[in-house]
Amino acid sequence: MKALVYHGPGQKAFEEKPKPVITAPTDAIVRILKTTICGTDLHILKGDVPEVTDGRILGHEGVGVIEETGSNVTNFKKGDHVLISCITSCGKCDYCRKGMYSHCENGGWVLGHLIDGTQAEYVRIPYADTSLYHIPAGANEEALVMLSDILPTGYECGVLNGRVQPGSTVAIVGSGPIGLASLLTAQFYSPAAIIMIDLDDNRLEVSKQFGATHTINSSKENTVERIMAITGNRGVDTAIEAVGIPATFELCTTIIGPGGCVANVGVHGKPATLHLESLWAKNITITTRLVDTVTTPLLLKTVVSEKLDPLKLITHRFRLTDILQAYETFGQAEKEKSLKVILSND
Amino acid sequence: MKALVYHGPGQKAFEEKPKPVITAPTDAIVRILKTTICGTDLHILKGDVPEVTDGRILGHEGVGVIEETGSNVTNFKKGDHVLISCITSCGKCDYCRKGMYSHCENGGWVLGHLIDGTQAEYVRIPYADTSLYHIPAGANEEALVMLSDILPTGYECGVLNGRVQPGSTVAIVGSGPIGLASLLTAQFYSPAAIIMIDLDDNRLEVSKQFGATHTINSSKENTVERIMAITGNRGVDTAIEAVGIPATFELCTTIIGPGGCVANVGVHGKPATLHLESLWAKNITITTRLVDTVTTPLLLKTVVSEKLDPLKLITHRFRLTDILQAYETFGQAEKEKSLKVILSND
Repeated sequence: MKALVYHGPGQKAFEEKPKPVITAPTDAIVRILKTTICGTDLHILKGDVPEVTDGRILGHEGVGVIEETGSNVTNFKKGDHVLISCITSCGKCDYCRKGMYSHCENGGWVLGHLIDGTQAEYVRIPYADTSLYHIPAGANEEALVMLSDILPTGYECGVLNGRVQPGSTVAIVGSGPIGLASLLTAQFYSPAAIIMIDLDDNRLEVSKQFGATHTINSSKENTVERIMAITGNRGVDTAIEAVGIPATFELCTTIIGPGGCVANVGVHGKPATLHLESLWAKNITITTRLVDTVTTPLLLKTVVSEKLDPLKLITHRFRLTDILQAYETFGQAEKEKSLKVILSND
Repeated sequence: MKALVYHGPGQKAFEEKPKPVITAPTDAIVRILKTTICGTDLHILKGDVPEVTDGRILGHEGVGVIEETGSNVTNFKKGDHVLISCITSCGKCDYCRKGMYSHCENGGWVLGHLIDGTQAEYVRIPYADTSLYHIPAGANEEALVMLSDILPTGYECGVLNGRVQPGSTVAIVGSGPIGLASLLTAQFYSPAAIIMIDLDDNRLEVSKQFGATHTINSSKENTVERIMAITGNRGVDTAIEAVGIPATFELCTTIIGPGGCVANVGVHGKPATLHLESLWAKNITITTRLVDTVTTPLLLKTVVSEKLDPLKLITHRFRLTDILQAYETFGQAEKEKSLKVILSND
């Protein structure tokens, strides 16, 4: 089969690899129908994720068809259409049993990281019974690729951890796909204001179309002054960090109001400075989270009931065989005005 | 009247000051019966709290008797014995109306800070109806001085924010009065283990008597290794920071387990480093809080029902006229084996 293979920092190829086989009775082999590229894949290609070794097939998102199942798999059978979760969960360890699948002792984020991933014609999914979801009848399968990672991430790590409430004021720092996923799912809770902050005017314009009440281009305006003007000098109730650098995290802790929540979503490579000399008395909460994907069933229902339209996040479509071109388009987001790109193998 | 007066960094005197008078119809004048000294008073004397100006009477804890009330005060009358909260709350602003009295727009922590405090024969209490508490019949008034600040602080900022649960593992970094207040109130929730960490063997010995299951002298042992051994390499569920320096805060973020809470209680003067490069995926919560004293009525009930014995925290007693000696004893905690000191004006 063909697959996108990592060959060390800066090196990748779309090349022939052996088709995966069942290695444990809880495995399933899935034929990929649709997959996508994540910002995390770009981090891997920069060499930021050293656990990923030469020869690894990348990708942790996708939908597909069950090709084969191990002898212990009972929830799925050959021919079932499935959504692949970016988080693999055994369902049996202490962390899984309290719904913290991100820290599954036998899984967690392994696809396209510690085992071969979804940017391929086929993928092996461990613990298939608890790591795949049936696709609801009539659902748009392309849209559901957004539920493998970015929508549960934006929702769980940003909106739920940030405790977005009716009438509250939310700032989202970073208007890439993950920030936009938080913007879309924050609206489940009817906040009074959602302020999107970015450097890219196109993404801010998209944010407005997606429901932002205010946008701030932080390269052109004083973000803190604008936020204080919008909030009557109180600061926001929720600040969602969706970039992953010290400056944006520290901005969140500056604009948060007393009693507010800073919800970190970004993947960080460096420490940040935490200004406890002012924050100690500010009654704030800061959260971090690798997505657990515990809300995938809930999000599937919001898509089916049209409370959430993930198709909005897809700007470009390619055949899987054109994945190198897709990486170019996704990697040059400002020039290409790209959000998520879909790769089809059907 | 006599009072302990701040005269700039390093300078204090017990001297004659005018007796306070009612200045607003919501005020009460309280004759002090018992007061105490807080670690925060030592910070003020070092010059760490520049809002405190020359001539300010210090102190934000105490019990007393109502001497006089303003015309709008209805909850209290002359002769009532009262507990003074360290937090003054108007009861009417947005923050008060959601129970966040620490950020009261007309009060908050003002006693011995922005207005004259309790280390005196008399004190003026603004918004008396919502800032004083009746002393329950038969209660030990000396014990209740511990409910002005340190017990609600240890409980709200440490135990509640840290989400201490039955069966959970709690580490408390700092075994001074505030850390011990967290230790005492954590036991309301039956955690499996409470690990106290300090540099002072006497305070660790006291911690054991107060219910700690483990103690670590961090000057003699590798704290992280001990904690990982105790928790089967998972880290603790709750880490309470009760010191207020970057090193102890960073220790809390090192020993916290996936899904855990770091509850900051310490008063900080400097920023800390937040290691987001490892914490971003650890699903942790960090909280900060100036005490709201919303749990004072609850804590009063635990004292009356003997679920909590605040007298344990009192090691030394002085007459108010000997307050300079009391400051010496309190300030040299390791040498004097002092926790809280009581000053009597009755």
